Amino acid sequence: MRAAIFNGPRSISVGDRPDAAVAEPTDAVVRVVLACVCGSDLWYYRGDSPFEPGPIGHEFVGVVEDVGSDVQSIEKGDFVIAPFAFSDGTCPHCRHGVTSACVAGGFFPMNGDGGQGEAVRVPLADGTLVPVPGSGNSDETMRSLLTLTDLMATGHHAAVCAGVKKGDTVAVVGDGAVGLCGVLAAQRLGADRIIALSRHADRQALAREFGATDIVEQRGDEAVEAVLEMTDGIGVDGALECVGTVQAMETALAVARPGSKVGYVGVPHGVDLPIGEMFFRNKGVLGGSAPVRAYIPELLPDVLEGRVNPGLVLDFETDLDGVAEAYAAMDERRAIKSLLRVGAF
Amino acid sequence: MRAAIFNGPRSISVGDRPDAAVAEPTDAVVRVVLACVCGSDLWYYRGDSPFEPGPIGHEFVGVVEDVGSDVQSIEKGDFVIAPFAFSDGTCPHCRHGVTSACVAGGFFPMNGDGGQGEAVRVPLADGTLVPVPGSGNSDETMRSLLTLTDLMATGHHAAVCAGVKKGDTVAVVGDGAVGLCGVLAAQRLGADRIIALSRHADRQALAREFGATDIVEQRGDEAVEAVLEMTDGIGVDGALECVGTVQAMETALAVARPGSKVGYVGVPHGVDLPIGEMFFRNKGVLGGSAPVRAYIPELLPDVLEGRVNPGLVLDFETDLDGVAEAYAAMDERRAIKSLLRVGAF
Repeated sequence: MRAAIFNGPRSISVGDRPDAAVAEPTDAVVRVVLACVCGSDLWYYRGDSPFEPGPIGHEFVGVVEDVGSDVQSIEKGDFVIAPFAFSDGTCPHCRHGVTSACVAGGFFPMNGDGGQGEAVRVPLADGTLVPVPGSGNSDETMRSLLTLTDLMATGHHAAVCAGVKKGDTVAVVGDGAVGLCGVLAAQRLGADRIIALSRHADRQALAREFGATDIVEQRGDEAVEAVLEMTDGIGVDGALECVGTVQAMETALAVARPGSKVGYVGVPHGVDLPIGEMFFRNKGVLGGSAPVRAYIPELLPDVLEGRVNPGLVLDFETDLDGVAEAYAAMDERRAIKSLLRVGAF
Repeated sequence: MRAAIFNGPRSISVGDRPDAAVAEPTDAVVRVVLACVCGSDLWYYRGDSPFEPGPIGHEFVGVVEDVGSDVQSIEKGDFVIAPFAFSDGTCPHCRHGVTSACVAGGFFPMNGDGGQGEAVRVPLADGTLVPVPGSGNSDETMRSLLTLTDLMATGHHAAVCAGVKKGDTVAVVGDGAVGLCGVLAAQRLGADRIIALSRHADRQALAREFGATDIVEQRGDEAVEAVLEMTDGIGVDGALECVGTVQAMETALAVARPGSKVGYVGVPHGVDLPIGEMFFRNKGVLGGSAPVRAYIPELLPDVLEGRVNPGLVLDFETDLDGVAEAYAAMDERRAIKSLLRVGAF
């Protein structure tokens, strides 16, 4: 089968890989329909994180092509959402809602196949895959279903960890796809005022469409000053950190009011938490790798019934052959998020 | 008046200070009845933190001797609890429950008087002081009321920040007075299983009296291993970090299960949060300087009605003249917590 291959920094190609196949009785093989490139893929693409050359990608939806003999809840022909982490659904961490810490689980492409390819062997299929009604969905809905594999659930995780509730004033640091989904998640959880930190006109427009009431274009200390000014010096009730850089975390902590939390979902790169500020101002830090599988049941109805439309972040599209360009477009900020149309539905 | 004075590391004496007096119309003057030495006082006593020579102490209860012209809810003769931070009770942070971040507030002895002295000028008396029925209380109750100025409220803060709820399994790192109060607070909030990390027999006994179901004597990696073994490899539902050292925080984070929180109240000294472990295991860190004033109304009835008896941590006592010995006893671990009987009630 054909799949995207990471050769080294800024070198992505499409190559031949062994066909995805059932290896364990709990596996399913999913033929990929839609996939996308994650902001976290850019870390290794840019050479900022180590990454093994080989298959890549962890966000995909598709059709089940084969299942192992132990798989019970998933059938051939099902249209499924695959969270970026696979999990058994039965271990203590899964039952506790932290599917991303499953004792038997892992992250794509640890399974051997990446999501940016024609097909994927999905371990622990019963615990991992979420079958959804596939036929009859508009392309818009299909794009939004794709975001439930990671970014919408990750934005939701940031908002949940920041403790966002009805009537809150919230700041979202980061205007990438996850940050924008964070805005949408905060709006969905009832925040009254959502301050989006964004300096790009197209992203600002989407942030507003997702519920942002205010935009702050500054960065660093100036952004902090602007948010504090907007909130009468108090700070926000919760801050979402959706980047993973030192500056983003510092900004999020600085605008969070005493007693509030920073919900952070950007994979931390060089972040050194200012524990003095945290201690003396009672600011908490909560977050991490989103337990996507646990969140899908809550988010899915809103997508299927059109109440949220996170797929709007996918503003660039190509096919599997165009995968290198999909990365480059995001790297060069020509795209917020790149969609790959891999297979027919 | 006479008051304890910090001259420099390991040098505490009793000296003469100007009489505490009303300086602002919102002040009260409190004649100190009972005071104590805080674990955080040991940081500067040992020379581990910088501290201005002068008056010291921030935990005291006493009788109101004078009030400024604007004070409305406190009267001369009231027996009062003074939280270690003063606060106006009306600013946005106070109304939000974070009295330790009051915009007009501060910490004793920023007011000019320390709690380890004959009298204290208490700023923002209406917002700060909590009048309680003084007469008729047993000495045991009076000691427990004293713990509401800091340590019991601080242990409660750790438990609240760790999200302790009915049925939980909890670990408490630190067997100082605050750690022991953390055990009591966790028990009060309904934890089923409380694992106290303690290597001192007297403290273990008190931990058990406060509700600890298990004791772990090891430290560091061995302690982590022991707690994980006790919890079938899962970790605890919440961990309380009541020390402030690197090792205590590392231990607390390591035993916390994925998706849980470390409630930390030890003033951090050299702590560098392991953000990778936090991110990939979804472990949050929440806590800081306890908003004591906000917690007193919830904790007070349990003390007055004898349901909790945190004053048991006060296992050494002397008078103001013995203050140097009170510090030395804690420094040398001869005492968990030193009580100073300063004035008659």
